Amino acid sequence: MIHHLTERWEITSRSKESTWALIHSVSDAFSGWLLMLFIGLLAGSLAGLIDISAHWMTDLKEGVCLAGFWFNHEHCCWKSNTTFTDRDKCPEWMSWSQLIIGHGEGAFAYILNYFMYVIWALLFSLLAVLLVKGFAPYACGSGIPEIKTILSGFIIRGYLGKWTLIIKTITLVLAVSSGLSLGKEGPLVHVACCCGNILCHLFTKYRKNEAKRREVLSAAAAAGVSVAFGAPIGGVLFSLEEVSYYFPLKTLWRSFFAALVAAFTLRSINPFGNSRLVLFYVEFHMPWHLLELVPFILLGIFGGLWGAFFIRSNIAWCRRRKTTKLGKYPVLEVFVVTAITAILAFPNEYTRMSTSELISELFNDCGILDSSKLCEYVNDFNSTKGDDLPDRAAGPGVYTAMWQLALALIMKVFITIFTFGMKVPSGLFIPSMAVGAIAGRLLGVAMEQLAFYHHDWIIFSGWCSQGADCITPGLYAMVGAAACLGGVTRMTVSLVVIMFELTGGLEYIVPLMAAAMTSKWVADAIGREGIYDAHIRLNGYPFLEAKEEFSHKTLAMDVMRPRRNDPPLTVITQDSMTVEDIETIINETTYSGYPVVVSRESQRLVGFVLRRDLIISIENARKKQDGIVSTSIIYFTDHSPPLPPSSPSMLKLRSILDLSPFTVTDQTPMEIVVDIFRKLGLRQCLVTHNGKLLGIITKKDVLKHIAQLANQDPDSILFN
Amino acid sequence: MIHHLTERWEITSRSKESTWALIHSVSDAFSGWLLMLFIGLLAGSLAGLIDISAHWMTDLKEGVCLAGFWFNHEHCCWKSNTTFTDRDKCPEWMSWSQLIIGHGEGAFAYILNYFMYVIWALLFSLLAVLLVKGFAPYACGSGIPEIKTILSGFIIRGYLGKWTLIIKTITLVLAVSSGLSLGKEGPLVHVACCCGNILCHLFTKYRKNEAKRREVLSAAAAAGVSVAFGAPIGGVLFSLEEVSYYFPLKTLWRSFFAALVAAFTLRSINPFGNSRLVLFYVEFHMPWHLLELVPFILLGIFGGLWGAFFIRSNIAWCRRRKTTKLGKYPVLEVFVVTAITAILAFPNEYTRMSTSELISELFNDCGILDSSKLCEYVNDFNSTKGDDLPDRAAGPGVYTAMWQLALALIMKVFITIFTFGMKVPSGLFIPSMAVGAIAGRLLGVAMEQLAFYHHDWIIFSGWCSQGADCITPGLYAMVGAAACLGGVTRMTVSLVVIMFELTGGLEYIVPLMAAAMTSKWVADAIGREGIYDAHIRLNGYPFLEAKEEFSHKTLAMDVMRPRRNDPPLTVITQDSMTVEDIETIINETTYSGYPVVVSRESQRLVGFVLRRDLIISIENARKKQDGIVSTSIIYFTDHSPPLPPSSPSMLKLRSILDLSPFTVTDQTPMEIVVDIFRKLGLRQCLVTHNGKLLGIITKKDVLKHIAQLANQDPDSILFN
Repeated sequence: MIHHLTERWEITSRSKESTWALIHSVSDAFSGWLLMLFIGLLAGSLAGLIDISAHWMTDLKEGVCLAGFWFNHEHCCWKSNTTFTDRDKCPEWMSWSQLIIGHGEGAFAYILNYFMYVIWALLFSLLAVLLVKGFAPYACGSGIPEIKTILSGFIIRGYLGKWTLIIKTITLVLAVSSGLSLGKEGPLVHVACCCGNILCHLFTKYRKNEAKRREVLSAAAAAGVSVAFGAPIGGVLFSLEEVSYYFPLKTLWRSFFAALVAAFTLRSINPFGNSRLVLFYVEFHMPWHLLELVPFILLGIFGGLWGAFFIRSNIAWCRRRKTTKLGKYPVLEVFVVTAITAILAFPNEYTRMSTSELISELFNDCGILDSSKLCEYVNDFNSTKGDDLPDRAAGPGVYTAMWQLALALIMKVFITIFTFGMKVPSGLFIPSMAVGAIAGRLLGVAMEQLAFYHHDWIIFSGWCSQGADCITPGLYAMVGAAACLGGVTRMTVSLVVIMFELTGGLEYIVPLMAAAMTSKWVADAIGREGIYDAHIRLNGYPFLEAKEEFSHKTLAMDVMRPRRNDPPLTVITQDSMTVEDIETIINETTYSGYPVVVSRESQRLVGFVLRRDLIISIENARKKQDGIVSTSIIYFTDHSPPLPPSSPSMLKLRSILDLSPFTVTDQTPMEIVVDIFRKLGLRQCLVTHNGKLLGIITKKDVLKHIAQLANQDPDSILFN
Repeated sequence: MIHHLTERWEITSRSKESTWALIHSVSDAFSGWLLMLFIGLLAGSLAGLIDISAHWMTDLKEGVCLAGFWFNHEHCCWKSNTTFTDRDKCPEWMSWSQLIIGHGEGAFAYILNYFMYVIWALLFSLLAVLLVKGFAPYACGSGIPEIKTILSGFIIRGYLGKWTLIIKTITLVLAVSSGLSLGKEGPLVHVACCCGNILCHLFTKYRKNEAKRREVLSAAAAAGVSVAFGAPIGGVLFSLEEVSYYFPLKTLWRSFFAALVAAFTLRSINPFGNSRLVLFYVEFHMPWHLLELVPFILLGIFGGLWGAFFIRSNIAWCRRRKTTKLGKYPVLEVFVVTAITAILAFPNEYTRMSTSELISELFNDCGILDSSKLCEYVNDFNSTKGDDLPDRAAGPGVYTAMWQLALALIMKVFITIFTFGMKVPSGLFIPSMAVGAIAGRLLGVAMEQLAFYHHDWIIFSGWCSQGADCITPGLYAMVGAAACLGGVTRMTVSLVVIMFELTGGLEYIVPLMAAAMTSKWVADAIGREGIYDAHIRLNGYPFLEAKEEFSHKTLAMDVMRPRRNDPPLTVITQDSMTVEDIETIINETTYSGYPVVVSRESQRLVGFVLRRDLIISIENARKKQDGIVSTSIIYFTDHSPPLPPSSPSMLKLRSILDLSPFTVTDQTPMEIVVDIFRKLGLRQCLVTHNGKLLGIITKKDVLKHIAQLANQDPDSILFN
């Protein structure tokens, strides 16, 4: 032994070897960084492409640009040379009614525009669902539950393949443009993970090693959120907190690099035309007052309630889709939901605009020059100093906007439940944030008017004098958005950091945190699971939650199979079974592997052999190796067992034997077993007592046991 | 078995029980949050106290306030009613020469001030070292290496106790005020961890559970960095990346909460008097140009070289301190180093001021009204527009400042090597950042002047026209600071995030990242370890690095003891050894535990018993239990072994037997064994072959093996 080690030292210390090792390790490290660079570039470019296309196609529902049909509304008017009053109304941009009947006024024009809006929406969404159905069934949904499951060690073949990537990218644009109540953030994570998985094939190191590839996927998920919000730090934390199962620290730095590259690629593409990194850039001027925490916490409660309500209703609806005939008509379902959404959305300008535009407008702090209806306050120019506007009385525009927003809120709340889970790519972030932002803005304006008309009330006195700017309704919208997003996803730190990156001011962390915390507590009190975990359970993926503590007092012997009255465990002996014996075992059982023991009498564990390997090896031996017949002895030992010379030639299968199977004793508390399964990512573990093999615990057994203890139906843990 | 489970269900589903469980779980969760709140409040208050006292005592070296000796210089002049030209010179503030000889001019006054400066410095540092030596030897150093080790599962009794807390807080103020080249950031982490550890005693849940307490310490470390820099997100990431060994995600949110509470407590105390959260608040106006990445990467290389140089020299010096007589005279050492530091520091204004003030000034972007010497540019008021200053020619003040800064750089580089590791609390962040900031500022000013005089050169043409503000020297200082800090600590994401929180702009992330990355690569190429890991190894703490990959092909059998030619493993049989036999084993060996086997012949493993438990149990039994003599049989089985009735009464010790010891087979690759040790935090692991016990691997064996494979002296892994 000592000799052996010394030899190894001599080899490694030889300078030639160590130079080679250095070059190898440098190129090795370099390949990781290169891969991250590629992922960042590809994810950023795809996100830019999606943004630009979705923007153009969203505007296409309303009209077309005469200067070039490939310009979107904003771009079209920006290119225009003629002068016009309203920024949005330039002669080059024609609504459909203007194009078809020559004018845009009157009831008929309105109906025509309405009709075209609905038709385009239906066209987009039907195209999306047909593409998904025809080419890449995995392209639907947000993809985050599946990615979580994949990162926990489960393999879903093709889920991150190139077809999924192509179809998801195209259908995401279509789905977003169709005006359905869905966002592009979750699907962007899936798209980025597809990029990561495909690019892994460029490097041998990552192509061959499943664990390393999972690390790359974690980084790709960070890049996905990074481009979704322009929040690289938030993206890394999202990957760490929500998506990744096992996040080794050495990938932290690489994830961050990928996230940054992706964000800056997106910025150079500049899809929003404002050279901002972030989707919703906001700048608030006024600090907040401690008393405002009360409405912020109210928003948190609202967010938590909404989150819990949404998860319950959505899961109930998705279960119905799975179990009834409804699931058989995905195209019809998309058609109906799109039609209802479009018909309800068009009359209300806040639902007609794209959801991200809506959120942007709700977050916005009204300046003196803002022309939007939400900023139609009664101006008192005497009290205005510079850009700092005091609280003002709301004008008629604000009141109209309030009604429309309230209606938009109700519509979004209900339609999102039916939208998430359809056979199109659909993210949850944007609809959740929209619901919260609307609620927040409503509360914010209410607070503002209260403070304006009643600044002598005790709650306002001391910090809100007349003519001061006390309340920023945009901040309320932002806090509301964070609360609702938190209620649905149960994100915590990453949520606050994403929001922090949107505003860039540490000042607003406390309101955001108060709301996010309240929301999580309220939602957790009603139902423990976030939407992604709920969907994982609904689909029966074998996902072992890493965050929950296992606090029961059961032992490994309570969980292992065989149970007390079952027939004994199927084992293979190391040197006394024939080919026929083993073939019988393979045919009679469906286990994916078998423990190998010294002998039936001693039951001492030697190793573990996989069913797949056994079948292949026996088949090969029968074909290629002379003298292997049904009565040949199979042995797993180093040397062949002593047998009479008349017996047929033997088959040595030591090479396929896993000599280091994982074992625990029957007295091991399940708390520790669950911990081992989680941390080491095991699929099965053998149970021994005083050195003798007793049974086996698989991941499925652990999941069933946890479900049992949580009084859930253990058979809901299926693997379909 | 099934019956047993059903019963358990019935119990938990009874509504009374579940209500109780709910209340219990709520109060349980609440206690965690409350603990975080307390830690945040205490850490924030202590940090504020330290800041205020250190500020006052630093100024005390130069003079005293007549309006009240408890005012520091700035506070004193701020309180003053009389008008005076220079902000820093008010009549109430008297330098020592003014106080003693009545005036501050002339050589004698200068020498008197010089003398007083050195005396105060010596007084402070001697007091610090005496307090540390006399009351709390653990209060010295930065504490981060030890906290890393503690979080990895090692116990250092008293390291986080109340005496350490009190003495460290006091001596930290003294050490910082003495003007030694050290910072308060690392020690603040230690102080916060002490707070966490002490506050754990308030809650049963945390007092009793070592693992839970470690989670609290992780969060406390985050709070420590949070108050050190006013960077809560960076603090959490620092704890995650650098300090914590195992960072369960559920503590992420709590750590963040503690970090935020601490930061806001500090802000309400407002020790810097600017109501800013951050230590170095900077606001840059100009974006950077892509070509500037070249100097930024140069700074990264400088930072990496400095980091590697510093670590090597400091470790060499510390080793000398450990091994030679030098270590026997800590007070003398502190005296000499303080004297040299103070004597060299006073003549140069950039070393005389406190290091954090220096960094602040270096980061600062020169405004039109800045009166500092670094901002003495030749003003051309014609080209000035608003607050945006163009690049200008440097005035004589800037040139003087450059020389002084260069001298300061040289002094800091060398004196820091001797300072870090002395018997006073000493952090590394601030001195490292100072070195980098000086280098960065020097390069920044050089670039600025180059761009000013040669804006027609190709490298400047296209982005830097005459009269434009192209170069921001303050940004260079910041990038340099990040590079040097990165080189020394090898922090990555947390470093960038801390710097990002200081500036609050995503714009500057790329320069910071480029520098931090280059610096890490350069430093890693020279020596793998950061300063904390180097000190852990120097002190021989049993720390199993979680970030390094173990890529050798050795097996468990190569590492386990007994080695091939050693005597067999000392084992205890389950039911055949007498009290005397076991006492002999205990006396003849020093192992901390013994495996229990079925019998000597079968060697099948039953469990593991700790030496400590054995000693106590046998002692108790001999005292309290009748009939226990040296020939009594000790048994670990459920039922007593069949013995002739004449034999003395037996001793049952099943209760102290660990029935679920961790085992691996002898063929398990060490890669997996190391992974298991890391992830499960094991101290030892038993090795079996075909169900028979073969040997044992302890954490020490794993560490020795890793050191051997890295061609290091395995005996450097000591546990002192």
